[in-house]
Amino acid sequence: MAVVTMQRETTAAAETGRTARLTIRRGDHTGATAGLAPGYVQGNLAILPGALAGDFLRFCQLNPKPCPLLAASAPGDWRLPALADDLDIRTDLPRYRVWRDGGIVDEPSDVRRWWRDDLVSFVIGCSFSFEEALMDAGIELRHITCGCAVPMYRTSIATTPAGPFHGPMVVSMRPMKPADAIRAVQITTRFPSVHGAPVHLGKPELIGIADLCKPDYGEPLPVNDDEIPVFWACGVTPQSVIATVRPDFCITHYPAAMLVTDRRNVELAIM
Amino acid sequence: MAVVTMQRETTAAAETGRTARLTIRRGDHTGATAGLAPGYVQGNLAILPGALAGDFLRFCQLNPKPCPLLAASAPGDWRLPALADDLDIRTDLPRYRVWRDGGIVDEPSDVRRWWRDDLVSFVIGCSFSFEEALMDAGIELRHITCGCAVPMYRTSIATTPAGPFHGPMVVSMRPMKPADAIRAVQITTRFPSVHGAPVHLGKPELIGIADLCKPDYGEPLPVNDDEIPVFWACGVTPQSVIATVRPDFCITHYPAAMLVTDRRNVELAIM
Repeated sequence: MAVVTMQRETTAAAETGRTARLTIRRGDHTGATAGLAPGYVQGNLAILPGALAGDFLRFCQLNPKPCPLLAASAPGDWRLPALADDLDIRTDLPRYRVWRDGGIVDEPSDVRRWWRDDLVSFVIGCSFSFEEALMDAGIELRHITCGCAVPMYRTSIATTPAGPFHGPMVVSMRPMKPADAIRAVQITTRFPSVHGAPVHLGKPELIGIADLCKPDYGEPLPVNDDEIPVFWACGVTPQSVIATVRPDFCITHYPAAMLVTDRRNVELAIM
Repeated sequence: MAVVTMQRETTAAAETGRTARLTIRRGDHTGATAGLAPGYVQGNLAILPGALAGDFLRFCQLNPKPCPLLAASAPGDWRLPALADDLDIRTDLPRYRVWRDGGIVDEPSDVRRWWRDDLVSFVIGCSFSFEEALMDAGIELRHITCGCAVPMYRTSIATTPAGPFHGPMVVSMRPMKPADAIRAVQITTRFPSVHGAPVHLGKPELIGIADLCKPDYGEPLPVNDDEIPVFWACGVTPQSVIATVRPDFCITHYPAAMLVTDRRNVELAIM
């Protein structure tokens, strides 16, 4: 019966967050999620042992721009009803990374065999949600035009520490004409749960970025003479911070293979 | 009886828009209005003959950022009940400029002797209103710190013409740290009826400003290395546009001597 249902879902392709997630769950999509289920919220994943979960939750609350927490599970619970009724965080991402003491030990498409009763799942908002609103407003996103990963930089902006979690804020950069940058501030202000307004614009050196051509993550992107670089707090920050702590065990999403939820991006707009 | 009432008002100083306006009406304040009646909306004034009024109204509606119209009177009517119950536009500004064919013919503190039955008054929003909100948010306004007039520039941004009214947008410039510039976009977006969000930031050359040190109006202001220039559409635009048209007759406020209204700046916030 379940199989029949899932086959039916295939014919609907990735129309909704749910159909995309079910396609992923049954192993029919194991790659990047960009472009899947347009309009539906995608999220970064971090799964931590109970001993670290309290501090990490507090870290997210102290640093809402780089770590906008969309949902946190109860310990050991693989469900996240705030994001989708039938969600199983152990099977619903295309691919995971399993870490031990800071090193990758597995990159499976299902983490049921790694599950523990103390694990807490954190789903953190992602820029896909506000990028949709920017594109709807007719603002060009160069990295999407170029088909490359957005450039990201470690900055001199410190996050507010909580327990062992600390480190620099990572930002993503999008080049824009000044009038578009102003419009982008207005639009992304409406989305505080997916990084919100930019943290910086213009002069990269003021936030410790020596060379825009050398991003720490992603790919470099040209900034034209009639543009300024606009910087948003980035969901790579919590991943970078967790890596610094080198937990004895944790699970994250595989880069670019995010959780697709049942919530719609438009729901996240505060006005 | 009226005299007694006005003397009572004197003891209340310029606490409210109304007391400030009555002080001005009786000739006890003939200078600049900056700092009078904090919290109350002030406005730029243009009074035009009926033959030009329709086109100018359309010009304001087509160019809401430089020409945010707070109120327009009926022809010949010196009242503006939208701004204050007892307002008399002929007496309630500290000083006026009366123009004939593009030249100044009088700078009186009362224009009753110049009044005509076809004159239409236009009151246009002013940056004082959003500057109060910026300062309340802890953002430094350098020209206020320095006690000088904000620098203003004619730009390469064209206004949308209406009838004879056309010409470049004039902008005011405030230097800000990038994070303050982002906050300032958010705050001034809430005030569309007093110029709203900036029209440009960063690179002045992109809007035809060759040298920030040489403003067309106001005084130059240093932009520090950790700051970017932020540009707002300016209420000098309609004055500049009217001057270009050289109407056979018109009246404006004397520079810096604005109309003080009974409306509060906070009323203008859209959210």
